[in-house]
Amino acid sequence: MFDYKLLSALAAVVEQGGFERAAQVLGLSQSAVSQRIKLLEARVGQPVLQRSTPPAATELGQRLLNHVQQVRWLERDLGQSVPALAGGSQPERLRIALNADSLATWWAPAVAAFCAEQQVLLELVVEDQEVGLKRMRAGEVAACVCAAERPVAGARSVALGAMRYLALASPAFVARHFPEGVQAERLAEVPAIVFGPDDQLQHRYLAALGMHGGFSYHLCPSSEGFVRLASAGLGWGLVPALQVEAQLTRGELVDLLPGQFLDVPLYWHHWRQGGELLASLTRHLGQAALQTLQPIS
Amino acid sequence: MFDYKLLSALAAVVEQGGFERAAQVLGLSQSAVSQRIKLLEARVGQPVLQRSTPPAATELGQRLLNHVQQVRWLERDLGQSVPALAGGSQPERLRIALNADSLATWWAPAVAAFCAEQQVLLELVVEDQEVGLKRMRAGEVAACVCAAERPVAGARSVALGAMRYLALASPAFVARHFPEGVQAERLAEVPAIVFGPDDQLQHRYLAALGMHGGFSYHLCPSSEGFVRLASAGLGWGLVPALQVEAQLTRGELVDLLPGQFLDVPLYWHHWRQGGELLASLTRHLGQAALQTLQPIS
Repeated sequence: MFDYKLLSALAAVVEQGGFERAAQVLGLSQSAVSQRIKLLEARVGQPVLQRSTPPAATELGQRLLNHVQQVRWLERDLGQSVPALAGGSQPERLRIALNADSLATWWAPAVAAFCAEQQVLLELVVEDQEVGLKRMRAGEVAACVCAAERPVAGARSVALGAMRYLALASPAFVARHFPEGVQAERLAEVPAIVFGPDDQLQHRYLAALGMHGGFSYHLCPSSEGFVRLASAGLGWGLVPALQVEAQLTRGELVDLLPGQFLDVPLYWHHWRQGGELLASLTRHLGQAALQTLQPIS
Repeated sequence: MFDYKLLSALAAVVEQGGFERAAQVLGLSQSAVSQRIKLLEARVGQPVLQRSTPPAATELGQRLLNHVQQVRWLERDLGQSVPALAGGSQPERLRIALNADSLATWWAPAVAAFCAEQQVLLELVVEDQEVGLKRMRAGEVAACVCAAERPVAGARSVALGAMRYLALASPAFVARHFPEGVQAERLAEVPAIVFGPDDQLQHRYLAALGMHGGFSYHLCPSSEGFVRLASAGLGWGLVPALQVEAQLTRGELVDLLPGQFLDVPLYWHHWRQGGELLASLTRHLGQAALQTLQPIS
């Protein structure tokens, strides 16, 4: 079996953000921690840490951390059925990839009660809904929220519901570019906002209106920033209806083409052997998502 | 001189997100665009594009794009003094690195008027305030907002003001963990929220209270997600006061230790030879930031 003393040292350095704090948590000297990391690197024949401030795991290091996490879940399950083993229970950490728009809307209220009851700490990784699955495949996360239904080998997927996106802009933007009312066929001529290179929502929205050419856009890889740019009148863009209820009510943002929306289905992918904690989160999320997301058509 | 036909092809593929759209914009066939990219790669002896969907620039490709952008600014300046040269003016694109919290608060209102008047498109890159300067040094961005004052060679820095951070949590979180009122000395024992490995704000806040050990935390690399997690009661964390005026007024979030805040100074770094557009944005930003940020102490 692996030497878990070495792997725990790696986990502590990354989780605590440094050798000094890792040493405190492990009750070791700093040089003992450093020694363990060097020994681990000698065994695997490659660096496991980038010596940055704070230190970050290399790709190999991240795979080892993921393995440590999976072992911890198994230990936790065992500890619940054999309480004598549970000992001083550290909160668990779940590493989950999800799209920025989920994080900006339904995610936190959906998991809050679960995390408080189960003493779980989240490590969230923001990935576009089209690419989160890559993180699962690489074994870097325990679960992910993404737009694809088909699970990777060893995982299961559960339908959560659909996020409804509306094409929004500020009233000033509409007045400047569409003084005679919004003309769908001119939408590709005015500046849009695009989240990042993986974000095809604006393209799909225009394609659904019959426009397949290029268009000019701001790039803004932040859900909150996206809404702020739209509210300030820099461009139009597709925003989850859930995120901007207040802005729509106050009239800070307006729906450019009422009735013309885009629904993006979201699925929860999790490892089959992820332990009872992950299975319990999966049941919890399925119910919470039902209450906020649209049914998948 | 470089062959700008080839460089323009690279810029079009990246900006349009694909060979097909790049060909449309350039008025070429798709195979002609592809040919130009191959020729460029043959000249520089390395790939300039990752053949992903959409295609992304390699590190070398990004440096070439940055050069193209600088040449475009110079052309734009020349076009303004020699109007005959201006021709069919495409909107300019400014690539700027800034911290997520600026993007979630003062940034959009501060630049909106400027972008509309000057027909500028923004390409925003989100980087922690401590590391944005790396993007300047690598020549990947035209300007950045960051916490360090000292400019890189060839650039200038301008003080914008300070972001004030308050330690916030939901009333339910406070009631659960501090039923007898918030005790500063127990803050390290309850779950915090940390933006990412580069975010030392929570550590600095605890250190200012005399706590230098480790603490447990959720990791959430999204400004909006951070506020949502805090509002849902998952943990406490440092949030810009500007971002949560509404939540504080409504009582969704409370200030854990009133009067105990952290001010993070922000500086605007820009290339000295960035052209008139960048100089004009710099003047504009300096004034806008004065109105929303705190004076730097």
